[in-house]
Amino acid sequence: MSEATTAGASCPLPRDPVDCVTLAHGGGGRLMQRLIADVFAAHLGTDTGHDGAVVCAGGARLVTTTDAFVVRPLFFPGGDIGALAVHGTVNDLAMCGARPLALTAAFIIEEGYAVADLERIVRSMAAAAAAAGVQVVSGDTKVVERGHGDGVYITTAGIGLVEHAQDIHPRAVRDGDVLIVSGDLGRHGMAVMCARENLHTEPPIASDQQNLWPAVAALLAASVELHCLRDLTRGGFATCAVEIAQSAKLDIAIDEAALTVIAPVAAACELLGLDPLYVANEGRFLAIVPATDAERALAILRSLPAGRRSSIAGHIGPGTDGRVRLHTRLGTSRHIAMLSGAQLPRIC
Amino acid sequence: MSEATTAGASCPLPRDPVDCVTLAHGGGGRLMQRLIADVFAAHLGTDTGHDGAVVCAGGARLVTTTDAFVVRPLFFPGGDIGALAVHGTVNDLAMCGARPLALTAAFIIEEGYAVADLERIVRSMAAAAAAAGVQVVSGDTKVVERGHGDGVYITTAGIGLVEHAQDIHPRAVRDGDVLIVSGDLGRHGMAVMCARENLHTEPPIASDQQNLWPAVAALLAASVELHCLRDLTRGGFATCAVEIAQSAKLDIAIDEAALTVIAPVAAACELLGLDPLYVANEGRFLAIVPATDAERALAILRSLPAGRRSSIAGHIGPGTDGRVRLHTRLGTSRHIAMLSGAQLPRIC
Repeated sequence: MSEATTAGASCPLPRDPVDCVTLAHGGGGRLMQRLIADVFAAHLGTDTGHDGAVVCAGGARLVTTTDAFVVRPLFFPGGDIGALAVHGTVNDLAMCGARPLALTAAFIIEEGYAVADLERIVRSMAAAAAAAGVQVVSGDTKVVERGHGDGVYITTAGIGLVEHAQDIHPRAVRDGDVLIVSGDLGRHGMAVMCARENLHTEPPIASDQQNLWPAVAALLAASVELHCLRDLTRGGFATCAVEIAQSAKLDIAIDEAALTVIAPVAAACELLGLDPLYVANEGRFLAIVPATDAERALAILRSLPAGRRSSIAGHIGPGTDGRVRLHTRLGTSRHIAMLSGAQLPRIC
Repeated sequence: MSEATTAGASCPLPRDPVDCVTLAHGGGGRLMQRLIADVFAAHLGTDTGHDGAVVCAGGARLVTTTDAFVVRPLFFPGGDIGALAVHGTVNDLAMCGARPLALTAAFIIEEGYAVADLERIVRSMAAAAAAAGVQVVSGDTKVVERGHGDGVYITTAGIGLVEHAQDIHPRAVRDGDVLIVSGDLGRHGMAVMCARENLHTEPPIASDQQNLWPAVAALLAASVELHCLRDLTRGGFATCAVEIAQSAKLDIAIDEAALTVIAPVAAACELLGLDPLYVANEGRFLAIVPATDAERALAILRSLPAGRRSSIAGHIGPGTDGRVRLHTRLGTSRHIAMLSGAQLPRIC
């Protein structure tokens, strides 16, 4: 992680030690990376370069991953915390190329929360899990006093099985590879923000949250060589691209004209002063593949509901600093830095 | 679960539907059982009869489990939330007879929490994990606004490997089996309560939280036939005994003289009006074994640090209602019911 926290200097971090955790530490940007590196990875030795970790057990190559969900509000257009808690963890497994097998779910419920709303969340979770073909095999329930929670927090963990021999990890990215993005950007974050702030767009923005495993499974089934997969959650497309560039120690050139932001998302971002490239998605991913496989991968993705708007959006080039450059529609180019704090707190 | 929520009628439940979640729903008693049955198990189909669930993957027999930790205060004599989050999940795996392999850890941190304290928690977690021989392989960090959390909540999930052919589950309990309890009761809950309420006992009460896998591993290595294992967490010894009796549809007779409660725990319980048999432990378990294996199992447990005070505390007898009777030191006997609500909120 040390490269990831010192490179990308266009937006320098304060050099003073941070004494207290801030909302920005949860935003998916550089402050979060530094907290993870300095506090979590330093002591626990956890590999932070990927969405999940491989565990070998009894001859099986398993992937395990976890995510806490604290989204506010709990219900938003296109989804709710229950479906999100399934898709978020299923997608982290998918990004490791692992077929999702089972989930665990732990609930922290605030005293006074309506049982009917809890049931609505659990039903949504059950429907998402059934559709994804995973079972919620184990759970836990804790209740905290009024004012010490926020309705419901859900933490899911997932187990997936790797059934192929590919090594899908930023370290597998090569000079000359092609970056495919699976759809338009910024819907989930803006759907949640509009619901939270009571902003209305026409048409309304629905979250893109969905299960990405079918798309990954189709690429694997077609033997597309997958060098890296990453779902574009906290920190959005831009932060993910920078993370991969820094991990791979290669540069990435992005073609802005190949990125889609639908009109209501663009309008809401402009209103709130946000850059859609940094806004979280929950149903979009990027795939980095060798140039020889790019057109085939694109055709497969475009044939699926989760990838209809897929495009080739970038190219990997030589470089040791892990820089990402955006070639704009105007013909200019600009450096893309990692999000330094939290653009949107609590969107997942 | 339907038997479990309707039997044990000495302490009748209100028949009205419960509209809001209360602290008692998190206490490990009958209200929690009913919430789990009506809301979680009903929709998710999760098996609620055990501490973890078996997942078969690529030829391996795995167990997975999860627990959210919301203990207050975060630091208490004998432990802290970090070590507890490791031991709680490792112990749930151990109770399924699974060797703990890996943990995931998701943190929900309240804005403003001191990074130095967070680091102290993570260091404690790392030490507990290293001592238990498990790695924290994957993590997540979320930050919630001041007043929407309580310092730190940690959810761990664990993966363990079953390396034997035994079926350790309440359904394996038989008439004639013997119940062994691995030590004195009530320390963890009273250590946390004394820390929270600023009560001082002489000597001070330290939590019993510890890794129970070495004790289970020793029993398995000696081929002791293990019918059921259960760690005595929320709801304490009494609730666990009732849960098992109800799941097995057999009666259990407990010998009070075989149960140990150390003097400061007894004194603190008396002061707070609590029954130590219902107070949570985090380093005690009960093992139900055939009578022929009981003395051998007891000798093995007594040879280990986690089981020095083990005793044969009960016998399984015929019965279909799953009743637990306590034969007191005075020669009388009384019916033991499941905890109906929360005796002690937020002790784990």
